[in-house]
Amino acid sequence: MQIAIVLYDRFTALDAVGPYETLCRLPDAETLFVAERTGPVRTDTGSLALTADRTLDEVTAPDVVVVPGGPGQSPQMENTALLDWLRTADAASTWTTSVCTGSLLLAAAGLLKGRRATSHWLALDHLRPFGAEPTGERVVTDGKYVTAAGVSAGIDMGLTLIGRIAGDDHARMVQLATEYDPQPPYEAGSPLKAPEHIVAGLRARSRFILT
Amino acid sequence: MQIAIVLYDRFTALDAVGPYETLCRLPDAETLFVAERTGPVRTDTGSLALTADRTLDEVTAPDVVVVPGGPGQSPQMENTALLDWLRTADAASTWTTSVCTGSLLLAAAGLLKGRRATSHWLALDHLRPFGAEPTGERVVTDGKYVTAAGVSAGIDMGLTLIGRIAGDDHARMVQLATEYDPQPPYEAGSPLKAPEHIVAGLRARSRFILT
Repeated sequence: MQIAIVLYDRFTALDAVGPYETLCRLPDAETLFVAERTGPVRTDTGSLALTADRTLDEVTAPDVVVVPGGPGQSPQMENTALLDWLRTADAASTWTTSVCTGSLLLAAAGLLKGRRATSHWLALDHLRPFGAEPTGERVVTDGKYVTAAGVSAGIDMGLTLIGRIAGDDHARMVQLATEYDPQPPYEAGSPLKAPEHIVAGLRARSRFILT
Repeated sequence: MQIAIVLYDRFTALDAVGPYETLCRLPDAETLFVAERTGPVRTDTGSLALTADRTLDEVTAPDVVVVPGGPGQSPQMENTALLDWLRTADAASTWTTSVCTGSLLLAAAGLLKGRRATSHWLALDHLRPFGAEPTGERVVTDGKYVTAAGVSAGIDMGLTLIGRIAGDDHARMVQLATEYDPQPPYEAGSPLKAPEHIVAGLRARSRFILT
């Protein structure tokens, strides 16, 4: 089972590594990090780079496509090389997936028309112009399209997908191997739970990022 | 605030990226990935590499040290270059931290003597010969030493540490920004919660890894 995780300049690391760390434990998984060019691809902070081992052209028919999000997603919305690749890979894939604002790239490629989908809570409204129906759920499955909410939601998505591909017990095994028994020290992980002034503060800052 | 995240051959990606994705959002954070040599360092699966931008020698007094775990931890237990660096860095650090079996490296460096600490649930007993007192908690703080349980626990550790360094509201902001509102599709993230046959299965497989 070939899993292609797409990298591009200024993606968010955990968006890619959450699904990677779960999906790489599928039976017979071949996990490939792909980008327009091979070599190191810098994350949004600039202080970390993940290596793309294959070019997009080299991986045309993965079984699973994973598209992370991050501040670098905006300029990719007009990158025809990437959008064309997403359409080609999607034509062959069993599952086409995204984390965070990666769903906006799937949407821009025309893959989420008429589909329920999610994204980072700050970006949900941006799905609608592409004909997708945004939901506030953490992991949304509509046909073969699985989209996850912001950044850390890719771990929940990875486990959900493993359950569908390899069965519940294999997913439970991966959850136990990665000791995913979350105990956040605060209750602030969604705009419905976080204090109002924190939601408002992030919303104000995000205007500079998302528009 | 300088944060040094240590990489070595066959570390587990999420062990490093969980703390990175949270701690990099500290005010004035300078996050550095360090290793014996600069350049790509392969994870345990071989299918991903993270770039080390600095050598250990170049970063001698970080404010925060983060040591990930993974199958590659075992050979590092006798790597005097790394253990010496851990002792030197620890002499200057405000916080010395680990995720998963990274705590065994802190222990091997002599830093956890008489301290309460944690590790991956499969490796907890390996702390004791080094004079550390293993606990089954997810994040353990003893003085300036903060150890986290397996793989995904580094996210909870990162948020805990941000709360201590920059205050609860900053930690809540980071939790909301990374949408850390975990909703695992299964209840199997700890040996107390997972079905018995899955715990036994992983325990049997781990004999080959941990001994």
